Amino acid sequence: MSELRSQLADARAAARALAPFTRQAKDAALAAVAEALEAHAEEIVAQNAIDLAAATEQAASAAVLDRLTLSIERIRSIAEGLRSIIELDDPIGEVLDERTLPNGLSLQKIRVPLGVVGVIYEGRPNVTVDAAGLALKAGNSVLLRGSSIARHSNLALVQAMSEALDAAGLPSHTVQFVEPTRERAQEMMQARGGIDLLIPRGGNDLIQTVVRESIVPVIETGVGNCHVYVDRAADLQRALDILVNAKVQRPGVCNAAESFLVHRDVADAFVPKALAALAENGVEVRGDDAVRSYSDDVVAATDQDHRTEFLDLVISGRVVGSLDEAIDHINAYGTQHTEAIVTEDAEASRRFVEEVDAAAVMVNASTRFTDGGEFGMGAEIGISTQKLHARGPMALPELTTYKFVVHGTGQVRG
Amino acid sequence: MSELRSQLADARAAARALAPFTRQAKDAALAAVAEALEAHAEEIVAQNAIDLAAATEQAASAAVLDRLTLSIERIRSIAEGLRSIIELDDPIGEVLDERTLPNGLSLQKIRVPLGVVGVIYEGRPNVTVDAAGLALKAGNSVLLRGSSIARHSNLALVQAMSEALDAAGLPSHTVQFVEPTRERAQEMMQARGGIDLLIPRGGNDLIQTVVRESIVPVIETGVGNCHVYVDRAADLQRALDILVNAKVQRPGVCNAAESFLVHRDVADAFVPKALAALAENGVEVRGDDAVRSYSDDVVAATDQDHRTEFLDLVISGRVVGSLDEAIDHINAYGTQHTEAIVTEDAEASRRFVEEVDAAAVMVNASTRFTDGGEFGMGAEIGISTQKLHARGPMALPELTTYKFVVHGTGQVRG
Repeated sequence: MSELRSQLADARAAARALAPFTRQAKDAALAAVAEALEAHAEEIVAQNAIDLAAATEQAASAAVLDRLTLSIERIRSIAEGLRSIIELDDPIGEVLDERTLPNGLSLQKIRVPLGVVGVIYEGRPNVTVDAAGLALKAGNSVLLRGSSIARHSNLALVQAMSEALDAAGLPSHTVQFVEPTRERAQEMMQARGGIDLLIPRGGNDLIQTVVRESIVPVIETGVGNCHVYVDRAADLQRALDILVNAKVQRPGVCNAAESFLVHRDVADAFVPKALAALAENGVEVRGDDAVRSYSDDVVAATDQDHRTEFLDLVISGRVVGSLDEAIDHINAYGTQHTEAIVTEDAEASRRFVEEVDAAAVMVNASTRFTDGGEFGMGAEIGISTQKLHARGPMALPELTTYKFVVHGTGQVRG
Repeated sequence: MSELRSQLADARAAARALAPFTRQAKDAALAAVAEALEAHAEEIVAQNAIDLAAATEQAASAAVLDRLTLSIERIRSIAEGLRSIIELDDPIGEVLDERTLPNGLSLQKIRVPLGVVGVIYEGRPNVTVDAAGLALKAGNSVLLRGSSIARHSNLALVQAMSEALDAAGLPSHTVQFVEPTRERAQEMMQARGGIDLLIPRGGNDLIQTVVRESIVPVIETGVGNCHVYVDRAADLQRALDILVNAKVQRPGVCNAAESFLVHRDVADAFVPKALAALAENGVEVRGDDAVRSYSDDVVAATDQDHRTEFLDLVISGRVVGSLDEAIDHINAYGTQHTEAIVTEDAEASRRFVEEVDAAAVMVNASTRFTDGGEFGMGAEIGISTQKLHARGPMALPELTTYKFVVHGTGQVRG
């Protein structure tokens, strides 16, 4: 039996054993895990330092190093994230539908755990804990296959969590570390029946590889080529605030804006101010001819620029002739993550909301709000950009399925 | 542009155009389609006769021919199925969640159509109409890639439906016929972004091929290796009625029983009666040594027999030593479709319901009840045996997704 097959068997057994645990038991375990992470913070930071040293040697970018870094403070914040999961309602056992059929059968549709959740992700050790906490509270066991760049950090985190779970009386294989090799990732993607849901978290390449190669059901997460459309009826000061916030407040995340569209009728009034504000914030703009006519600093945008999730202080821009043109552009170039319109025109916002195909549509608000925490769902395990099962931020109910339970008195079908 | 790419573009345009249609308009279109099918019944039956003649020449089995056959009466029943969809609530626009966030943002989670649904299915022309009707009511356009064995029948059905939709003012590409070639099926499976959900309906080979090869999200449907477990605390007369009904009332469907398990303590009392009743109904039994000890007519069951969805008057059987053994057998050999226990012991039924991993779990009722109609959901587009998005019978809400709509007054993230 390969190592993964043995881990899959352990994961299934853990999921079966975990399913009947009460909310109280799961919450107590989460509290114990949070405490354990804080208690082991120094060891974890020491292991993280090994990863950071190796990554620095490999000339990793500042953004990569930032995402990889654990500090005592960050570990405390990760532990707080776990504690916030304690506050969330336990979704398991919820009766989603209930009826008595004409033949006397009693039918219930009951929310149950998915079973075994797999996560394949890049060098963000916080995902190790967030994913484990949410999976556990939803009654699932989890296989965590992170990046080799974070191997020491993830091992230390999983070890601290596993010891705490064990001490709390939970199945010891509730949370498992999977070696960050390509072979293991491949095995996970082939483990239909062994893994019930596979969540890739990371850049577009990782996600597309998993989508293409996995025969386990996948939820595509996180690639956000998000637009801010400034309508001709926009409050231009609001539009400016929203555009700058969406682009610069945290450029490395999926709900940051990567592109702006401006209605022709307000281009003269808006674009020069926007270019000035973006330049002031160190943002490089790649625009069409109309945008470039306002400043020599704007680089000519290629079609690929309009498709790119820069995750950096770069943005593409276009002037459009109509709301329809904006919607068509977004539906053609967007990634169905988050799209924003700035307008005071109710009919324009109604059409934008209805016709733009995305997980989240913002009217007069920054794209940056698409987030499980901001949406009041608690911590999130990712933001789905597909339409099946879950769309947008995924938290606890999105990590469950349901089961029809039918009680009869000997009914047969005639 | 290949023919499928052009069909995909038409399907997307139709889905966009269809989304704002009101319930009234969609219901009127369904009524018109039902009427058109009845009006064209003779032509459809004539086209079906061509398919039947070819299938007969190719020595298709009686079961295949039965599923392929359309008669005036069957067309009337298919039209009635469409009319029953009219009665169902329109899921679109339902507000699934609504809240005002602390920063004043107003958040709504709204049910919206999936967009473009693809169905790849075998020689059952009724699926052509059922799938089209459900997809349409849920606001989706649909691409129907049936079997070559039913090509003339499906073409005639789609043509009658399309004309009626066109006359009712719906987008003319709401329902499209896709040529039943392997190439077209392959193109559908690669059409990520073009097709939002792909539903394979048919035998295990078809479904596994689609699951393996598709990069479009798939819902696995329909393979049911369903068990009836007769507990030691069973009412044995009920158990007999349920077992016989589950096996013989309609053996060719996915919710028919393919295997029985009997607790050792009631084997002497139950198995001889069960074997007699099954034999009387023409059922071949393949059993383990314990079952075979009651009759020379029982063939020795192989491991493969325990895994097989016979879809015929054949059943496998085993005697088990405990409830745990029954649950373990079912979780190892079942297909997570429908599993039944017959028992008067509340604790045994509680454990069976909790520990058996299946879309539907029956207590003292026939497996044959897992069905959208029986469950009161209206017509069904298939029975999902996976855990993601939809489990068990799928009707209208299962053909939708949702969108987060956020209204603000210029909020930015701090």
